[in-house]
Parts: sequence; C-alpha cells; structure tokens
Amino acid sequence: MGHSSEIYVYLNGDIIKKEEAKVSPFDRGFQFADGVYETIRWNNGKLFKFTEHLERLKRSLAGLKINYATFEEIKRAINGLVKINAFKEKRLLIYLQITRGNFFPRQHFFPPLTTNPTVFISVTPFKPKERELSEGIKVILADDLRWGRCDIKSIMLLPNVMARQEAVENNSGEAILVRNNFIMEGTHTNFFAVKDGKLYTPSLSNFILSGITRKVIREICNDNDILISESRIKVDDLKGFDECFITGTISEVTPVVQMDDWRVGDGKPGPITLRLQKILCEMISA
Amino acid sequence: MGHSSEIYVYLNGDIIKKEEAKVSPFDRGFQFADGVYETIRWNNGKLFKFTEHLERLKRSLAGLKINYATFEEIKRAINGLVKINAFKEKRLLIYLQITRGNFFPRQHFFPPLTTNPTVFISVTPFKPKERELSEGIKVILADDLRWGRCDIKSIMLLPNVMARQEAVENNSGEAILVRNNFIMEGTHTNFFAVKDGKLYTPSLSNFILSGITRKVIREICNDNDILISESRIKVDDLKGFDECFITGTISEVTPVVQMDDWRVGDGKPGPITLRLQKILCEMISA
Repeated sequence: MGHSSEIYVYLNGDIIKKEEAKVSPFDRGFQFADGVYETIRWNNGKLFKFTEHLERLKRSLAGLKINYATFEEIKRAINGLVKINAFKEKRLLIYLQITRGNFFPRQHFFPPLTTNPTVFISVTPFKPKERELSEGIKVILADDLRWGRCDIKSIMLLPNVMARQEAVENNSGEAILVRNNFIMEGTHTNFFAVKDGKLYTPSLSNFILSGITRKVIREICNDNDILISESRIKVDDLKGFDECFITGTISEVTPVVQMDDWRVGDGKPGPITLRLQKILCEMISA
Repeated sequence: MGHSSEIYVYLNGDIIKKEEAKVSPFDRGFQFADGVYETIRWNNGKLFKFTEHLERLKRSLAGLKINYATFEEIKRAINGLVKINAFKEKRLLIYLQITRGNFFPRQHFFPPLTTNPTVFISVTPFKPKERELSEGIKVILADDLRWGRCDIKSIMLLPNVMARQEAVENNSGEAILVRNNFIMEGTHTNFFAVKDGKLYTPSLSNFILSGITRKVIREICNDNDILISESRIKVDDLKGFDECFITGTISEVTPVVQMDDWRVGDGKPGPITLRLQKILCEMISA
C-alpha cells in the first residue's frame, strides 16, 4: 500500500517509487524525441476508452516502426500502479510513454532490433478544472510550427510547449494552432465550432491527431441527431460561428469564450457546447 | 584514470560512470523534446570552433527560453571528462545536451523558474569514415517533415531519425531533406553543390541549421578565392551541378556521388570537394 507522500510509477517491468525511476541519458526518448505516448482517464475502477487508446498507441508505434508487442503488460502495469498508489481520489490520469530504448553510442538511425523499448507509466489524481468547464476559457491563435506527422502521437512536443506557454503568458487556457490560415487543433486538444446548431471540426490529416474525445463527440452527435461536419476551417471564418469548444482527455469539453480579441457569441458557453459537455462527463463517470 | 572498459559521462555537476548516469522520466527532455544539444570535435587537446558552438548553444537556449547561464561549467566538464576517460585516441567527439529539467506533475507549459536545467555531456572516441570521405556516398532525397524552427538545434530529431533510417535501408549515407521542391539540408549535415567552380548552398532560414562547418566552408572559400552563393536550390536544378557534398561536425566534407538515381558528375568525388575536404581536415587537426 502506498503512503500519501509517495508516488509509485512503472518503468520497464518494475513498480518503483517516482524518485527511483530513472532512464539513461542515452535513451532515444531523451536524445531524439524517438517515442510515443498516451494519456488515459481512470474513473472509479474503470479505464475510459482504453481499447481506443491502445489501438491508437499501436498505430503510433507502427508509424515509427518501434517494435513493441507486449500490450498485455500495459493493463497489468496500470492495475498494479492504481493498487499500490491507493489514491483516495476516484478519478485518475494515466500517462504512458514508450520509446525506442537506450542505445550507446548515439546514432540517428535505428539501434539493433534487440534493443528493448523503454516503457514508462505514471498515475496521478485527476482534478477536472471546474471553473474552465463551467465558464469557458480564452484561447490564443498561434502559428502551427509542428512537424508533418501530427497524426502520430509522438513526444515531438516542443512546439506544443512553446505555444502553450505563450497562451499562459497571455492569460489563456490553450493555444489554437494555425497553419496556412487554417485552424488545425490545440496544443493538446481538438477544436470544434458550432453554427446554426451544426458542429464543425477540422478534418483529419497528417497535421491533426485523431483524438479519442473527438471520436466520442462524433458518436454523441450521431446518437443525438446533432449534425457534424469535418471540413477545413479558415481563421477568417471563425467570427461566423456561434459557439467554440476544445476537446481532450484532460479538457473533456471545454467551452471557448474568447479567441484572441474576438469574443465568441455572448462570451458565455453556448447551449450545444454545454449539452455535449454534460453527456461526455456522464459517459466518463458511468 | 578511466579503465578501457568504462566510460564516464557528466550529468548535473557529477562525473560518473555511463551506466550510473540516469535522468528522471519526468525530465522535459524525455517527455517533451524540450532541450537543445551540440556535438563538438576535440583533437589532440583542442576543441574545434568551441566558441562558435557555445554561441550557437546560447542562441538555441534563448530561442526556447531555457534559463541556463553557467557556461563555464561546460568547458570544465569537458576537460574533466577527457582527463578521466583517458582515451588512447587523439580524436574525440563531445556530445552536450541541456533540457528544461525535471518537473512533476507533467504539464506542457514551462515549470517554475526555480527548476534546474538538466546538463548532460558525453565524450567518445571519434573515428572519421575514411572510405566515405575518399570515395563519397550515395544519398536519398526525403520529404522534410521537420518542425518550423530547424534553426534551433533542439532535440526534436524524430523526423531526422526516420529519414536517416530510410537512407540506411536504401544503402545510403544520408537523406537530403526536400521542402516544397527545394533542397534544405541533410538529417545532420548541410548541403553544398558546385557548378563551374562556384559553390552553392541553401540560404539560412527557419528550416536550416546554421552549421558550424558550413560557416567554416564559407571562410575557406573567402580565403581561397572560391565563389560561394547562398540561394534556393530546386530539386530540378540538381542535375545541372558538377559536384555535391555535405558538411557537418561528424561528416566534415563528405562527397556525394549519387542522389537517388542520379549519378553526380562521373560518380567520383569532384576536385573542389576534395580540395575543401583537405583544407578543413587540416584545420581540425591543426
């Protein structure tokens, strides 16, 4: 059983104290951003959309040709971590990262196939940002400087870091990334807009991550006869929308009430946004 | 004094055995590619173009707003590493990486300013690839999938890894990255071409790293009355060139004798390439 002052993590087969978890500085995750990750919600004993996260993880690994196949390890590790940490909270966030492993000497090309991937998992209590969910957030628009394979959930996150920091410095909750005048997505969220009761979200491409929550929103729309269109959204088109929101494993459905200097609608979360937020919240807690 | 079987590295103030050097999986270098690096040549007691590498390192750190200022630590650490490792080789390669440090819990935006950057340095014997230098290499052309700030020497290297691996799988020594039909640079090298005795290299932009060796080549040209032009090079223009080569701290001046299916010149290293190679080699060894 864990003590409140100690957090246990999983690293390459072992469940150990957070402070004891160490990777080599020759790990390819540390030197080359050569790895992938997932964040997954855990609620009252249940993982939310675990199969979908696992499928995406497999696609990410395949996209990078990282040889990892022992997926049963992941579920077992998460269960072990949840048990030993014994958090009193009923909502947890799982972070999972797999890299191409540790190889010396440093070289750009792949290490031998015998090199074991590095598998790291951590679990932390999850506190939804109640105020952001109920009142909505400001966002900034920022240049999308990311690489050409944002559809792979890799740890190539430096441009996301820089844009997210720019948002923080502008008292905003997220940066929405713009490429060639088209809206892509947030630094760790997908983007949606509403007009005349219909949803719009940028269509999938190599510049957009196929978000699990994005997919769930599509399913909710189908089940509730809400029209949804995947299309290209120009920055200039934004002011024609009635509502905007972002989605993600951590953000759920977070209303966007201001984008740069533009106040969305009347500056309060819109009715469709709040309706979707409520349905999603109930699904996660179910 | 080091034993031949042990390699010592530098990590956050300590010189320790390579196997004992460990960073936290919560290091931002491991989770966000949030760091920068340099590789520097050491020859017979002297660092080659150390001031230039240090200046570039400062620019990279400033570009990412990583607060690191104790640069005197670096020279001292390198000297300490060279001494304790006591390699019998007279040519060494220094690898230096600085990240935004270790912070828990994971969050995209910057950790508090009190978070110490992680500083890692390793030294390995350097063996020039004699055959590649004398006979030249084949290269492939590959899509440039990198992010929009390749002028910062960050650890955002996954696209470089993937392109370099593609080169290896095609029996080639390097991948030359192409963006919108224009030649950018290699995965860890700059690109040069020669026509009628004059050098051409892509002009600096946010998609090209300001290579130290690239700069030295410019200086050599100035000192030897060789004309050099920084310009845009289209893929379609390649076949009009007489010679091609790549430059880098590790590659020095490596002739390119084949690009995809196109044999450069007569398929042997050209005279200007070999002349520059010789001058650079003498400078490094001086």
